[in-house]
Amino acid sequence: MPVEYVVNMLATLSFAITGALAASREDVDLLGLTVLAVVTAVGGGTVRDIVLGFDVFWVADFNYVWAATAAALATFLVTRLFRQTYRLLLYADAFGVALFCIQAIDKVLDAGFSGPVAVVMGVLTGIGGGLLRDVLAGRKTLLMSQELYATPILTGGVLHVVLLRLAPGFALAGVVALAVIFGFRAAAIHWELTMPERFLLRAEATPV
Amino acid sequence: MPVEYVVNMLATLSFAITGALAASREDVDLLGLTVLAVVTAVGGGTVRDIVLGFDVFWVADFNYVWAATAAALATFLVTRLFRQTYRLLLYADAFGVALFCIQAIDKVLDAGFSGPVAVVMGVLTGIGGGLLRDVLAGRKTLLMSQELYATPILTGGVLHVVLLRLAPGFALAGVVALAVIFGFRAAAIHWELTMPERFLLRAEATPV
Amino acid sequence: MPVEYVVNMLATLSFAITGALAASREDVDLLGLTVLAVVTAVGGGTVRDIVLGFDVFWVADFNYVWAATAAALATFLVTRLFRQTYRLLLYADAFGVALFCIQAIDKVLDAGFSGPVAVVMGVLTGIGGGLLRDVLAGRKTLLMSQELYATPILTGGVLHVVLLRLAPGFALAGVVALAVIFGFRAAAIHWELTMPERFLLRAEATPV
Repeated sequence: MPVEYVVNMLATLSFAITGALAASREDVDLLGLTVLAVVTAVGGGTVRDIVLGFDVFWVADFNYVWAATAAALATFLVTRLFRQTYRLLLYADAFGVALFCIQAIDKVLDAGFSGPVAVVMGVLTGIGGGLLRDVLAGRKTLLMSQELYATPILTGGVLHVVLLRLAPGFALAGVVALAVIFGFRAAAIHWELTMPERFLLRAEATPV
Repeated sequence: MPVEYVVNMLATLSFAITGALAASREDVDLLGLTVLAVVTAVGGGTVRDIVLGFDVFWVADFNYVWAATAAALATFLVTRLFRQTYRLLLYADAFGVALFCIQAIDKVLDAGFSGPVAVVMGVLTGIGGGLLRDVLAGRKTLLMSQELYATPILTGGVLHVVLLRLAPGFALAGVVALAVIFGFRAAAIHWELTMPERFLLRAEATPV
Repeated sequence: MPVEYVVNMLATLSFAITGALAASREDVDLLGLTVLAVVTAVGGGTVRDIVLGFDVFWVADFNYVWAATAAALATFLVTRLFRQTYRLLLYADAFGVALFCIQAIDKVLDAGFSGPVAVVMGVLTGIGGGLLRDVLAGRKTLLMSQELYATPILTGGVLHVVLLRLAPGFALAGVVALAVIFGFRAAAIHWELTMPERFLLRAEATPV
C-alpha cells in the first residue's frame, strides 16, 4: 500500500539518522557511519527473517538500504542540524520502533507462528539493529543501560498479541498497541524516565 | 522422551542462571538480565541451526525460552542465594554444556553432515550463547580468557565423533564423551585450572 | 577449477594468518587464536550465505576451515616470523579480500540478485570476518578506524558491477576490479593512507 510504504521509508530514515547520530559519538568516517546507519535500520528485521527462515526483506526490496544510506549521507552533511533536533528525532525513532514492532508481529503471526514467538520477533525487530550497531561501534548496548527503550516495545508487543486473541474482530488492535509503545516511549524521552530501582540488579550488592 | 526432555529443561535452567549471574557483574535491569539469560541459554543452538539451515529449535518449542525466562526471574529475585551457590551452579552449567554439545553432534551427524562439521557445531552450541551474552554485555569473551571452558567441549566432541566412527555399535559413546567433557570441566572448576603457559601467545612478546 | 581452488586456499591462509596476528595483540590461547582465525577467514562469507539463503560454503567444503586452522597453528608456532613479515602479509590479505569480494559478487549475480545486493554482499564477504573477529576479541572494529580497508573493497565492487552492466562481453571485468581493489589497498598499506579529513565526522564537534 503506497501510504504504508511511504511511512515505512520515513520510519527507516528516522531509524538510520538516530543510529548514525549515536555512532557519531566517536570519530567515524563516512563509510563507517553509513554501514552503522544501515545496520541500525535493517539489522533487527534481518535477524528476525533469518531466525524464522523468511527471505531477508531488504534483499527483496533494496529501497530500505537506499533510504538508510541517504539518511547517513544527510547526517554526515548536516550533523549540526540533526544534533540540534536530536530530541525531536528521538520521537520519530520511537514511532519507527513502534511501527516495525507491530508490523513484525503481524507478519510472524500471519506465517503461522505462536504469539510468544511473535512477541520475541517484534522486540528483536525493534532493538536488534541498535544492538548490532552498538556492538560494531564498541559502545555499551541498551541491554546494559537503564533507559526505557525495550520495555515499551515489549509492553506494546504483548498487548498487541493479547488484543488479537481476546478480540479477534477488533480492527484497531494494531493502532492501540502502536499508540501504547509510542506513548510509553515518548513519556520516557520527555521526562527522562529510567527503569525503577526495584527492577535493577546492582553489581556491587554481592559480587560473584 | 520425557526424561531427556526434563533433563534438557534443567540444563537450560542452569545455562540461563549462570548466564544471568555473569551478566549481573555489571548493573543490569530485569529485562536486560532476561534477554542476556535467554541469549546465553539458546544462542549457541540458534547459530548452529541457522548455519545448517535447520528450523531454529526454540521457535519450534518455545519452552526453552520460557525456562530461560523463569531462570532469569529467579536469579533476579534470589541473586544472593544463587551467588552463594555459584560454584555449585558452575557444575550444573558444565553438565548442560556437555549434554547440549553431544546432542548437537548427534543431530548434525543424523542430518548427514561430516564429523568435522558436527564437532564445530557441538562446540558452537556449547560456547555460542556465552559468546553472544558477553558481546552484548560488553564483557571480555571466553576466547580471550585462559579459562578451560571451550577446551573440554572440543576434547569431548572430537572423542564422541571418533568413538562413533571406530565403534559404531557402541551404544555408550555419547555417555563416555559427556562424562569426559563434564569431568574435564569439573576438574577445571574445582582446581581452578587454566590453559598451560605453552599454549598461550603473549601479546607483549613481539608487538606487531 | 584446480588453479582457482589453490588460489582460494592460499587466500584463506593469508586471511587467517593476518586475523590470528590481529587477535594476538592481546594474550590469547591456542584454541581462542584458532577460533578467531577461522572466524576471520570464513565469517564474512558465512553471513553472506545466511542472508541470501545459500548453503554455507564451509559446511559444504570443510577445507576452508582446515586451511584456517592450519594457519592458526602456524601463526602460534612461528609468530615471531609472521610478525616480522607482517607488512608482507597485509598485501596477501589485500589480495585475498579482493579475490573473495569479486567471487562473491559473481556468485550473487549468478543467483539472480540485483547489482546493489551483490555489492553489499561483496563488501560483507570482505569485511564481515574481520568485524566478527574484532567483536569477539573485544577490539575496536575497522568501522571505527580511519584505515582504508572497506573503501577499496566498495570501490572495486561497484566498479565490477558497473563494468558487467556496461560491457557484458568484457571478460576481464573481474580482473580489472580485482586489480583496483588490490592496488588501492596496497597503496593504503604502503603509504599508510587514511580517510581524508573531509570524510570524517569528529565526535567533539557538537556533542549530542
